[in-house]
Amino acid sequence: MIRALCFDVFGTVVDWRSSIIAEGVQFNHRYGWQVDWAKFADAWRGLYQPSMEEVRCGDREWVPLDTLHRESLERLLDESGLSLQEDELDHVNRVWHRLQPWPDSVEGLTRMKSGFTLATLSNGNIELLSDMASHSGLPWDAILGAEPAQQYKPRPEPYLVSAKMLALEPDQCMLVAAHNSDLVTAAKLGFKTAFVTRSTEYGPTQDFDLVAEHGYDHVAADMIELADQLQGQ
Amino acid sequence: MIRALCFDVFGTVVDWRSSIIAEGVQFNHRYGWQVDWAKFADAWRGLYQPSMEEVRCGDREWVPLDTLHRESLERLLDESGLSLQEDELDHVNRVWHRLQPWPDSVEGLTRMKSGFTLATLSNGNIELLSDMASHSGLPWDAILGAEPAQQYKPRPEPYLVSAKMLALEPDQCMLVAAHNSDLVTAAKLGFKTAFVTRSTEYGPTQDFDLVAEHGYDHVAADMIELADQLQGQ
Repeated sequence: MIRALCFDVFGTVVDWRSSIIAEGVQFNHRYGWQVDWAKFADAWRGLYQPSMEEVRCGDREWVPLDTLHRESLERLLDESGLSLQEDELDHVNRVWHRLQPWPDSVEGLTRMKSGFTLATLSNGNIELLSDMASHSGLPWDAILGAEPAQQYKPRPEPYLVSAKMLALEPDQCMLVAAHNSDLVTAAKLGFKTAFVTRSTEYGPTQDFDLVAEHGYDHVAADMIELADQLQGQ
Repeated sequence: MIRALCFDVFGTVVDWRSSIIAEGVQFNHRYGWQVDWAKFADAWRGLYQPSMEEVRCGDREWVPLDTLHRESLERLLDESGLSLQEDELDHVNRVWHRLQPWPDSVEGLTRMKSGFTLATLSNGNIELLSDMASHSGLPWDAILGAEPAQQYKPRPEPYLVSAKMLALEPDQCMLVAAHNSDLVTAAKLGFKTAFVTRSTEYGPTQDFDLVAEHGYDHVAADMIELADQLQGQ
């Protein structure tokens, strides 16, 4: 019996790439830059997994994702020969707090909220996810994931600590994600799993995570279809 | 508009003193002790506030309440000339994971759950509170408080981080507690407040926290009366 739905956020609930491109165009205007924001967003996100690796391996003490995003941003701006004042840097870095949901997310989540506890299970830090929820109307009951566990997915801690913080067993929780690897990790730890297709998360030429590659408990085209499936049970 | 009810737990939701006395009598049988468990429970709880003080002041790194309870337990057993094996010590220490709710708690909370997100806002660690929830059927949506904030009440962090983890502003959260000091701290930080009377938490001669000493948003005799008040709004 599933009691809580735990959501991967970046790519699954919000469209980070389009959101960064949209704000980036405004940054170009404001700062007189000529940055290609599609490339910049991909490069920034490209540093995401490597930036967490030192923490995962224990070579670095816990730092929240805002810090890792900031280090990657400074490196990329440096490589592009761009510089910003501290307050501007902070504003650009916090674009991750202002990501826009996919068109079906708010409606789908709001419908699922009537039957389940809704929690994030994201590598984003609490402040980032909380700001994003206010900004975009995401109806979370609880903001869980890496920061409360002081460890990044796919290490087991964020999954297991999140279940514990909901006072549930892993098999009473279902991870909803657009990424096969995340779902496989969650399933190994006892979570139920739901794959939601986000075939343009990485842009129009994305050639991975286009289909559910394993036997998940649910496979849906978007959050509204997932809400339909869960309501019909 | 209140969206979440955040509960102090020890004394407010569960009756730690009677629970420890009840298990203590069994320990006396099992180990051949002649401990006065009412006195022992009071002494153990008496070390609770002092044990957190080093962490609050920054003189000690974060340690979870299980560790502080264990240190206090060892000290009290030592003073009583009693000794236990490691597994027995651990079992006695985890009596805090098995505390019984006050008679009205489960019914009251279950009724409030239909209108609000229910979270702990306790100094107990996540594992302790999660075990207690399974043991006693406490229907939490989220287990929040000191451990996710890595700081003990009444420092502001547990209150503010809990609101953030619910993606709410402090004034959308109401602290429910049987302790005037806890409610005053919460109110200063912007929380709504509800006082629930627990006039025998510290035993039959308790002479403090018998009445609401300030103008809280709600004052109720127990959780069922609080559920009534919130439903009537």
